[in-house]
Amino acid sequence: MIVKIKKIKISKIIKLLNIKISLDKNFFIKNISNIDQAVNGDITLCTSSKYLEFLKKTKASACLIDKKFFKYVPKSCLPLITTNPQIDFIKISNLFYSEKTIDNISKYFFKKSELKKNFKNISFGENFICEKNVKIGKNVNIGHNVIIKENCIIKDNVNIGSNVILSNSIIHKNVNICDGCIIGKKGFGFKFFKGKLLRIPHIGKVIIKEGAEIGSNCNIDRGSISDTIVGKYTFLDNQIQIAHNVKIGDYCILASQVGISGSTIVGNFVTIGGQTGISGHLKIGNNVKIGGKSGVVKNIDDNKTVMGYPATDFRMFIKKNFAK
Amino acid sequence: MIVKIKKIKISKIIKLLNIKISLDKNFFIKNISNIDQAVNGDITLCTSSKYLEFLKKTKASACLIDKKFFKYVPKSCLPLITTNPQIDFIKISNLFYSEKTIDNISKYFFKKSELKKNFKNISFGENFICEKNVKIGKNVNIGHNVIIKENCIIKDNVNIGSNVILSNSIIHKNVNICDGCIIGKKGFGFKFFKGKLLRIPHIGKVIIKEGAEIGSNCNIDRGSISDTIVGKYTFLDNQIQIAHNVKIGDYCILASQVGISGSTIVGNFVTIGGQTGISGHLKIGNNVKIGGKSGVVKNIDDNKTVMGYPATDFRMFIKKNFAK
Amino acid sequence: MIVKIKKIKISKIIKLLNIKISLDKNFFIKNISNIDQAVNGDITLCTSSKYLEFLKKTKASACLIDKKFFKYVPKSCLPLITTNPQIDFIKISNLFYSEKTIDNISKYFFKKSELKKNFKNISFGENFICEKNVKIGKNVNIGHNVIIKENCIIKDNVNIGSNVILSNSIIHKNVNICDGCIIGKKGFGFKFFKGKLLRIPHIGKVIIKEGAEIGSNCNIDRGSISDTIVGKYTFLDNQIQIAHNVKIGDYCILASQVGISGSTIVGNFVTIGGQTGISGHLKIGNNVKIGGKSGVVKNIDDNKTVMGYPATDFRMFIKKNFAK
Repeated sequence: MIVKIKKIKISKIIKLLNIKISLDKNFFIKNISNIDQAVNGDITLCTSSKYLEFLKKTKASACLIDKKFFKYVPKSCLPLITTNPQIDFIKISNLFYSEKTIDNISKYFFKKSELKKNFKNISFGENFICEKNVKIGKNVNIGHNVIIKENCIIKDNVNIGSNVILSNSIIHKNVNICDGCIIGKKGFGFKFFKGKLLRIPHIGKVIIKEGAEIGSNCNIDRGSISDTIVGKYTFLDNQIQIAHNVKIGDYCILASQVGISGSTIVGNFVTIGGQTGISGHLKIGNNVKIGGKSGVVKNIDDNKTVMGYPATDFRMFIKKNFAK
Repeated sequence: MIVKIKKIKISKIIKLLNIKISLDKNFFIKNISNIDQAVNGDITLCTSSKYLEFLKKTKASACLIDKKFFKYVPKSCLPLITTNPQIDFIKISNLFYSEKTIDNISKYFFKKSELKKNFKNISFGENFICEKNVKIGKNVNIGHNVIIKENCIIKDNVNIGSNVILSNSIIHKNVNICDGCIIGKKGFGFKFFKGKLLRIPHIGKVIIKEGAEIGSNCNIDRGSISDTIVGKYTFLDNQIQIAHNVKIGDYCILASQVGISGSTIVGNFVTIGGQTGISGHLKIGNNVKIGGKSGVVKNIDDNKTVMGYPATDFRMFIKKNFAK
Repeated sequence: MIVKIKKIKISKIIKLLNIKISLDKNFFIKNISNIDQAVNGDITLCTSSKYLEFLKKTKASACLIDKKFFKYVPKSCLPLITTNPQIDFIKISNLFYSEKTIDNISKYFFKKSELKKNFKNISFGENFICEKNVKIGKNVNIGHNVIIKENCIIKDNVNIGSNVILSNSIIHKNVNICDGCIIGKKGFGFKFFKGKLLRIPHIGKVIIKEGAEIGSNCNIDRGSISDTIVGKYTFLDNQIQIAHNVKIGDYCILASQVGISGSTIVGNFVTIGGQTGISGHLKIGNNVKIGGKSGVVKNIDDNKTVMGYPATDFRMFIKKNFAK
């Protein structure tokens, strides 16, 4: 169960990280956040010059940074200089959130006799395990052997197949999730630190928007700090892997066995051929078409059609491979 | 549950599609069918010049066509000219078959106490969910947490692993299905129409022939109108994806993580290396060998050995990549 | 259930294989084994000149060989010349081990009431099916719908997600296995013989060493004669396929959808990008980095960085694909 500490004194954080700084005033940190989403009371981090624009305007109350970014931190934000902002951020995450580096099941699920009473307008199969603090809308169909973990929200008219495991997810109306999907599991994130693999906490969610469809045996991991998102009326085929923090737009079509690595953003009306892989931290524009089995390693502009490994302009791919 | 309407007056269909035609005689349509399999009483469609030979000889009683194919329709068949034969065909499918665009579970399954009585010659594990109207032969072994949906037929000496979901399937004798397979689910088929994704109904089956083996966590989707077929003594490794309408011949070997797109036909004695992908609507000959991780985008003749992305003659692949 | 015959007279084996040889002395064979691991009392086989060094020093009491290897067999080992050592080895395996070519479930699992009594220091979810002869350490967490088959050994502080199927496995301490994994299933091994597919028995185990993590929906098949191994603190992402006899070293990172074919050996501190495939029987050195979606078809030396299909030196890959 996610247990969040309400607030932690900045002095306690500074002590934990062993940072040498003299505080004008002690204050409370209320949460951890991404640099582009941080609000007053948050602590965040900036590890790449890619995010300098966000740093300059951040509303965070404190920010872990490399020394070289010191001058970009706004006055409202306390700069905390460290040699390893990511490792220190993991440590702070573990202060706020407990037990979120391993996903265990909760003992607080409804007994069979309580299910019917608590979920009157839904239909569900045998061996349905539903943890407490789950909200399910009207006219929802749930298959056999389904596990829905705490804090999930499922809106009206959703269909969930059998053998599905849902956690940390918001499923909007008219979504169809096919058999065997595992959605909301922690992502594959860790850092080597002093010869140990340190797991990055995953406190984000998976959000599947209205009318989307997820094929059988798909994996969609929840975000580390931000959320993993599948857009409206986006359709995923079978055996697809969507990593943490990925954001897929509306009206996209992903054929089977596609894999998208962490933090990549895909636009609207994008079609992705089967077995295509997309590297992490990329930006794929709107109306992009990606041919089957492509390996995408660079950003793609709007309206482009690409194919190949590495993926290139589609006409180039044809010319290179089929020209006499 | 598949509910099929027995027959529908052609005048009703014409009215639904808003087609302007004067009928000499009203008559009944009894089913929908593919152009190459249609019999008297069926309605079919022809959308590509690839299928003209079938159109000329079709036994269907009516056929949805583009205007340009009008002259090829035999006298015994009523030509229905439409600007969008596929969308209109989906509409007719939905007239005949209900609820086959989303797979829900049925409430009509055997209670634990009924299972032993109804299936005397089989062995099954815990939490076996077997819907009504399922036929199971002798000496069948079924694992734990298996779901078998209505209308499945399982012949003698079949082994089914744990966590398997079977629907709309015919499993012939001596077949071995490993843990975690999802077989017979609806395929990934839809059309964009007026800004909405229209799901194509999937009324076909999955047929797995004698002695075949399906590895763990494989997905085999059922056909849309025709069936998806895995041939005799064909062996599939783990994590394989077989899309709707695919037909795989006898004595084939598919290594793990292979994906075959919709409607592709694979011959006999074909071996396919791991992670290979084959595009849709292709024809792969007999005795073909496809190297690992290939991307097949064209038909392959009998007895060829290919490899690469896109797949090409194996000697060419070697020459291109390993020649000094 | 694996039933092993204790010992078989060499005369009986010779008769079964129809080998013409006159015995000086009849003796017992106690087990089958790989050429590099055989001890006194074992029967083994040598089918490739790759293994001649092992043959020369083998401690096996008998060895199936091609005629051409006759002169390399040490005096302590009875050479059994045959035209088809592999097929004959399968026959002998089937003499010693029964029912290990198909994985069925056992009827000997603990009833719900017995579970709590037998496993006092572990926490487990609903519908936990645990066969007899399973050892589970302290502080182990097990999810819902988990199946653990006979002879598995699970050490302290292990986490097992929901819908996991474990068989023939040894899971060392602090391992984390995520939802939906199928570990220990028989591998994908068979030989064509007289027009039939003969399954190779799989009597090896899966060994997952201390601190390793296995992502969701992974498949790790058990070894045929030797074991399949995942090393210490090695992390696997989702949807990964590890074939029989593969040995992965310590501190490796495998991104999602990677597939490793049978008998390949991977060193320590190796990182493998998403969707990469590695052919069978290869040797990947220590500290190797393999880029995403690579297809590895050759051995890789220590400290190399490779990418591509076929995988090549990383700088070559960049030069070939991105140079102007």
